[in-house]
Amino acid sequence: MTYLSSAPLDRLDQHRQQFPALANKAYFNYGGQGTMPQGAIDAIQQAHEYIQKIGPFSGASNGWIMEQAKQIKMAIATELSVPPETLTLTEDVSVGCNIPLWGIDWQAGDHLLLTDCEHPGIIAAAHEIQRRFGIEITTCPLMATLNEGNPTDVIAQYLQPTTRLVVLSHILWNTGQVLPLAEIVQLCHAQPKIVRVLVDAAQSVGMLPLNLTELEADFYAFTGHKWWCGPAGLGGLYVSPDAQASLSPTFIGWRGITVSSSGQPTGWMADGRKFEIATSDYTLYAGLKAAIAYHQQWGTATDRYHRILQLSHSLWQKLSELPHVTCLRNAPPESGLVSFTMEGQPHPAIVQALEQQNLLVRTILDPDCIRACVHYFTAEAEIEQLVEAIACAQATNL
Amino acid sequence: MTYLSSAPLDRLDQHRQQFPALANKAYFNYGGQGTMPQGAIDAIQQAHEYIQKIGPFSGASNGWIMEQAKQIKMAIATELSVPPETLTLTEDVSVGCNIPLWGIDWQAGDHLLLTDCEHPGIIAAAHEIQRRFGIEITTCPLMATLNEGNPTDVIAQYLQPTTRLVVLSHILWNTGQVLPLAEIVQLCHAQPKIVRVLVDAAQSVGMLPLNLTELEADFYAFTGHKWWCGPAGLGGLYVSPDAQASLSPTFIGWRGITVSSSGQPTGWMADGRKFEIATSDYTLYAGLKAAIAYHQQWGTATDRYHRILQLSHSLWQKLSELPHVTCLRNAPPESGLVSFTMEGQPHPAIVQALEQQNLLVRTILDPDCIRACVHYFTAEAEIEQLVEAIACAQATNL
Repeated sequence: MTYLSSAPLDRLDQHRQQFPALANKAYFNYGGQGTMPQGAIDAIQQAHEYIQKIGPFSGASNGWIMEQAKQIKMAIATELSVPPETLTLTEDVSVGCNIPLWGIDWQAGDHLLLTDCEHPGIIAAAHEIQRRFGIEITTCPLMATLNEGNPTDVIAQYLQPTTRLVVLSHILWNTGQVLPLAEIVQLCHAQPKIVRVLVDAAQSVGMLPLNLTELEADFYAFTGHKWWCGPAGLGGLYVSPDAQASLSPTFIGWRGITVSSSGQPTGWMADGRKFEIATSDYTLYAGLKAAIAYHQQWGTATDRYHRILQLSHSLWQKLSELPHVTCLRNAPPESGLVSFTMEGQPHPAIVQALEQQNLLVRTILDPDCIRACVHYFTAEAEIEQLVEAIACAQATNL
Repeated sequence: MTYLSSAPLDRLDQHRQQFPALANKAYFNYGGQGTMPQGAIDAIQQAHEYIQKIGPFSGASNGWIMEQAKQIKMAIATELSVPPETLTLTEDVSVGCNIPLWGIDWQAGDHLLLTDCEHPGIIAAAHEIQRRFGIEITTCPLMATLNEGNPTDVIAQYLQPTTRLVVLSHILWNTGQVLPLAEIVQLCHAQPKIVRVLVDAAQSVGMLPLNLTELEADFYAFTGHKWWCGPAGLGGLYVSPDAQASLSPTFIGWRGITVSSSGQPTGWMADGRKFEIATSDYTLYAGLKAAIAYHQQWGTATDRYHRILQLSHSLWQKLSELPHVTCLRNAPPESGLVSFTMEGQPHPAIVQALEQQNLLVRTILDPDCIRACVHYFTAEAEIEQLVEAIACAQATNL
């Protein structure tokens, strides 16, 4: 991390100046939505202008859009260490989760294993599949493994001979815990009848250095608008080459199919487009590409993750020292998510009061806590500002 | 249509100047994608800037996004004459069709009726549902009713006691025929066991003056990026109040569900959000709102449709006079879509040659033809330019 040695503050200031959202606040909601670099916003605007110039609907614009799709898949593929053909572009991480959830050829009596830390939308989708196809769902308690115990052991206890799919998050969105995904996948794939693993990667993509080929998860659903700081409305799904044939598309449009010379559907696209649906906001491809490139200018994924850990350690440490604040984790965080509780007022009131001071954090309902996120470009001064305000809010309540 | 009486050309020129796409070409692909007014592009850019200023993830930005969603639903509801609560925002018309297609509680042996003029993506979705749930599909021949016969009679012949859903387009995307939707819906709803009607409204919304409450179709899926000239990536679905309870969500995320105080899913949103999934590009709401407002500045939906008919009549007439061009319709068009065949070179080569001259039309595979679309703001000079080029292309081939 050579960038830390030579005038780091100047370089950080310069880097941060490209994020207009950071000009008027201290920002800790990267797990909700990342701050877009100006270059990403500009790229979207330029894409709109270019599409109007050469189209909007023309041979030229259709070709350009296909090229943009190729380029954003290349950029994502490089970050995730996967072949670009394994990637499906989606509107968001929920769509990315729904594709495998609905795409498995469920039979009555099949078992799906959830964890107790999944996003409510994903839980609701699983329960609707239960209703539609007569599957069984159980939920395993991973929240309790934040400070002790082994998530892999818990999952092992909950696997059944009928289990076909485990749904979990790589980083738990509520507590910030990083699950030992490689180990869990190994466990699932080693079952007599293979158990597939669907990963909600909302918090891990753009935060962790990733090699999905080595991790071997079957389905890995992500979004560009959180830790990658891209525009809202563009995410994706990685489907491992091994799992691809086992999955059928559910929501279907012209993008996922092949057609005959007379326009009749003949089958699915051979690559990740198989699960894409229809018209999207293609200008976002240029936006996300610009955002990813901007992070790469700063440092490698490993560099950025190390910096996130330094900063979340610092935030965790400072919060832990406040008398009436309790960090959920006993040990320094493994991610950029720092969750904590405060005595005194209810958490929503505290979050609202902090927003009034231009300090942006959020509440989590389960467990009832406040979540503050740091990115690699978070300023130490921002952390100090937040901790001071929290200390102050505490003092006022006492 | 008072605007035609007082210096119409000046007003038209002025109106057209707000569409950057019209500056360098003659455009006839509104059925593929509409030309965005500059105000819509600017609104998107401003929304991006505003979201970064107040968020991107904050109490303020979440509130603002909810308000934007409300406003775009109001704008759409006014254009379609429906209560805003009946509207679901989707990424595109295909998603809007997939929601009812998958949301019906299909039982093996149920019958779904398609027409032979539906978009291949929708046909593929229907066939996947057939595979998943063991339903039966038949396809009724409406293409042949372009110049003779009655589509309602054809559909009546194809209804079965087991038919649960008819899927058709309000305006056929290949031939431009406008189906007698009210009559067809009446027929379907009068069956001993009610037959629901799903309408692919890709070509009708933004072209026809619409009152969906009177039309009584059960499901009406549309997009903002064709005849409304909004941004790609935003469409919607109308679900009639009567049909709402019969439909379950399929792709599910946080937007469609209600949660308990501890964040557990408790049910569906009571209004059209029930079928919305998760994070979208919310900046598009401002873009589409601006586009719709821009059309309203010109005239009412009825005014605009009448102007479209004048212009498509003119194009149809001029094309019909060319010796080696055959318009698919014998009578003047009922919509802005004018489809025709040409002798000589294959249609793709002709379309490509026209694009070289900045004249944008497209091919259709079934029936094999060329499709040219006119909007209410198409210039007569554009039509003349296209007809001349086609006459010229013909002359060259002979």
